[in-house]
Amino acid sequence: MPVPADVLEELVTANRILANEGIVDAFGHVSIRHPERSDHYVMSRARAPECIEAEDLVEFRLDGAPVTPLTPDRKPYAERFIHGAVYEARPDVRAVVHHHSPSVIPFGITGTKFSPVMHMCASMGTDVPTWDSRTHFGDTNLLVTDLAMARDLARTLGDRRVALMRGHGAVVAGGSLREVVFNSVYLELNAELQMKATSLGEITFLSDGEVAAVLKTRSSFTFERAWEYWCRRAGRPYDTRPMEGPLAGAS
Amino acid sequence: MPVPADVLEELVTANRILANEGIVDAFGHVSIRHPERSDHYVMSRARAPECIEAEDLVEFRLDGAPVTPLTPDRKPYAERFIHGAVYEARPDVRAVVHHHSPSVIPFGITGTKFSPVMHMCASMGTDVPTWDSRTHFGDTNLLVTDLAMARDLARTLGDRRVALMRGHGAVVAGGSLREVVFNSVYLELNAELQMKATSLGEITFLSDGEVAAVLKTRSSFTFERAWEYWCRRAGRPYDTRPMEGPLAGAS
Amino acid sequence: MPVPADVLEELVTANRILANEGIVDAFGHVSIRHPERSDHYVMSRARAPECIEAEDLVEFRLDGAPVTPLTPDRKPYAERFIHGAVYEARPDVRAVVHHHSPSVIPFGITGTKFSPVMHMCASMGTDVPTWDSRTHFGDTNLLVTDLAMARDLARTLGDRRVALMRGHGAVVAGGSLREVVFNSVYLELNAELQMKATSLGEITFLSDGEVAAVLKTRSSFTFERAWEYWCRRAGRPYDTRPMEGPLAGAS
Amino acid sequence: MPVPADVLEELVTANRILANEGIVDAFGHVSIRHPERSDHYVMSRARAPECIEAEDLVEFRLDGAPVTPLTPDRKPYAERFIHGAVYEARPDVRAVVHHHSPSVIPFGITGTKFSPVMHMCASMGTDVPTWDSRTHFGDTNLLVTDLAMARDLARTLGDRRVALMRGHGAVVAGGSLREVVFNSVYLELNAELQMKATSLGEITFLSDGEVAAVLKTRSSFTFERAWEYWCRRAGRPYDTRPMEGPLAGAS
Repeated sequence: MPVPADVLEELVTANRILANEGIVDAFGHVSIRHPERSDHYVMSRARAPECIEAEDLVEFRLDGAPVTPLTPDRKPYAERFIHGAVYEARPDVRAVVHHHSPSVIPFGITGTKFSPVMHMCASMGTDVPTWDSRTHFGDTNLLVTDLAMARDLARTLGDRRVALMRGHGAVVAGGSLREVVFNSVYLELNAELQMKATSLGEITFLSDGEVAAVLKTRSSFTFERAWEYWCRRAGRPYDTRPMEGPLAGAS
Repeated sequence: MPVPADVLEELVTANRILANEGIVDAFGHVSIRHPERSDHYVMSRARAPECIEAEDLVEFRLDGAPVTPLTPDRKPYAERFIHGAVYEARPDVRAVVHHHSPSVIPFGITGTKFSPVMHMCASMGTDVPTWDSRTHFGDTNLLVTDLAMARDLARTLGDRRVALMRGHGAVVAGGSLREVVFNSVYLELNAELQMKATSLGEITFLSDGEVAAVLKTRSSFTFERAWEYWCRRAGRPYDTRPMEGPLAGAS
Repeated sequence: MPVPADVLEELVTANRILANEGIVDAFGHVSIRHPERSDHYVMSRARAPECIEAEDLVEFRLDGAPVTPLTPDRKPYAERFIHGAVYEARPDVRAVVHHHSPSVIPFGITGTKFSPVMHMCASMGTDVPTWDSRTHFGDTNLLVTDLAMARDLARTLGDRRVALMRGHGAVVAGGSLREVVFNSVYLELNAELQMKATSLGEITFLSDGEVAAVLKTRSSFTFERAWEYWCRRAGRPYDTRPMEGPLAGAS
Repeated sequence: MPVPADVLEELVTANRILANEGIVDAFGHVSIRHPERSDHYVMSRARAPECIEAEDLVEFRLDGAPVTPLTPDRKPYAERFIHGAVYEARPDVRAVVHHHSPSVIPFGITGTKFSPVMHMCASMGTDVPTWDSRTHFGDTNLLVTDLAMARDLARTLGDRRVALMRGHGAVVAGGSLREVVFNSVYLELNAELQMKATSLGEITFLSDGEVAAVLKTRSSFTFERAWEYWCRRAGRPYDTRPMEGPLAGAS
């Protein structure tokens, strides 16, 4: 069952936004679960997100096998297993980003507490785990290139939205494509803000109650408002799609 | 009484400048008091400042009710109450910005002294308070979504130009639109400069006398010079409007 | 005696480069000594450097009086006295920049040692003084708006290329327009590099002998190579002017 | 034997990418070993990398002498000797970059341990030496302007991919042009990440085994993916050249 063209275009847009906002460079990737087949997902062939077009998008099974064999000049991302393992473990997840955004990495390599310092960033949650490939797999090239590693990472993620990967990056999982893009951008912002605040003095983090309140009241309208803005910056058309949640003005 | 078209265009320009200079992203907003009706103010419907056009601008009463009902596809900013409460408390204020600019946030979450370190930034004053929504409202999503919270924030602001909001952002109030945009940009700069200086050694802040001298001698010409520059960068026409104060060359 | 058109265009280009490279924003200014009349200098009317055109340029006497009276809509920079006082005290100086570049300010407000850490930045010298307006003039708005303050600043500058101004910015003086633009850009870079290095450990500065060797061997070709690059970035034509010194490849 | 036009265009592209990604400004340079004559190399005449066209490229002998005499308006880079000395000492090297990228310099002037913190940056190796011109040559202008200095630097580099130069920059050597551009960009990123992490806490560096694993499994496909991205950003056509290594999807 083919994925509708507007869904594919939205995935192209997500790639371009992530590149334009500095969340991914030539590396990193974003996927969506197939809207009709929950055991399939869609992501680009291995290519820099800024360069991706709709024809680069490929459908995969959760084990990482392409549904249609790829031609030799189109290779899959070696780390696509991250996505399959998260979809497998988390029926609620409909989109996944794996990225190496530059302010997030330092938290994964120092083990510093990483927690929301601002309401926009609350969706990362107050309990962000760090997965270290070395714990179960020893000295590797750090890439998650098979299901065993990916499932181990998915176990660390658990039922959360974000996990850091030591010396590597992060994985962001969520209920929609716009949500994971939003949460990736604001994860990077939280990292930047927390680093700056660390240089000034003792930080007052958001309380658990505040984070819960943000998550409870955040509507898809918030994601829409950011999406329109990021589309404009990335030179992509803004498609007002039917939204998944109740509408409400935000911040 | 309709707001003149050139006034509306100036408000569009203010939105675009704040976005282009990195003071707001998809979130944050700027308003003006209605030029003829001091109990009304004008701001955009809920939309990213970079995307705003004149037809997005809406007239509100100070209690946050729109003067003309909005259509379902046009929602008000949930936090418009900030603006109404400041106009209510401060007859001298003719424009308000609420933003989350990235170097300012760390000061609100650490309680570090935040004071002018450079003449261009003196208008923030030497006494910048921080409002914490938790003090009177407990664990919330930190958004100022009703008049009770907004009036509490306005009380913290008092007769000052700037108040920080813990884990959230800042509010900047002033006598003209160009002034609040100017003061928002230079508030962010002061934060950046003070953070850099903190890493080097003990800071000599501007003295109270110096800050008073800057405020006493600053003319609207200073705002004009910056406005022309920011218009050019944002791709907006520069409209030389009648200025409110005495003309004088500056810096 | 009118200033040749190509000299005026070069001064426009210098303004645009300084803005485009982030050394000035809406404020800051650059001047040249009149090529034929050493008791005159040329700089723009008060306008943001990014917006300046050749028709904005004005000829001044060293006391700051315009040679031709300005029309009411064209005001001089209030701080033009800085330039006059430096030309008066330093016959060797043919161009002056006054700027507030963002990594330089923190050194002026902390009194931290500020010295070359990299060969490209050696021209600032190993002895950069900081002028504090408060020392002789008490609590002011920090602006150098008369000859008395400007001469005091020029005395602090002495025979050096750079002086910092506490809570304000810096003045850069040199033998040609391309040299002062070059030294302003690399002064900002040295400040950025030194701040980063401070966060890592103990810094090995360039020795006095190394700084002397750089200054002795630096040719105008170095300034030309940078000028061509900065013109391209600023969208200005590159004019290969006769150079003042011996030609030699550099770095 | 003339160098093929597509090889020259690739070298132009390398120059433009290094400028566009902020690795070089008006200074710094990149060369390739002549594809047919291992005792010659090709690099631009002395010009800012962003401005370089194919007709600026010049063929040199390893001692730095141009194969065809240059006209007076075309000067060689004074520091071209760095390239010749590395090609002379290292038959495996086919491309060299010398740059002053802004986060790398602070490591060279503080002697801080500089080691991979992230898989993308592993190619710098865990043993990055710093060459100090003062050790054997005393107080100089720090430029490597003859073969004696360049050979001394090449000895410090040894069989590694990267050496820092105190108060100056770095040299990056590798097996292909795309590799040295890639390693230069990710060297700067590692420096930025390590500095940020230093401000947060104790860093877990990649282990020697991890670095070895990355190097063993990194294929030319990784360089290709980045090259396509950087070409797009720099406004240069992407030329899919025959690749040197086994193809494999990466990260």
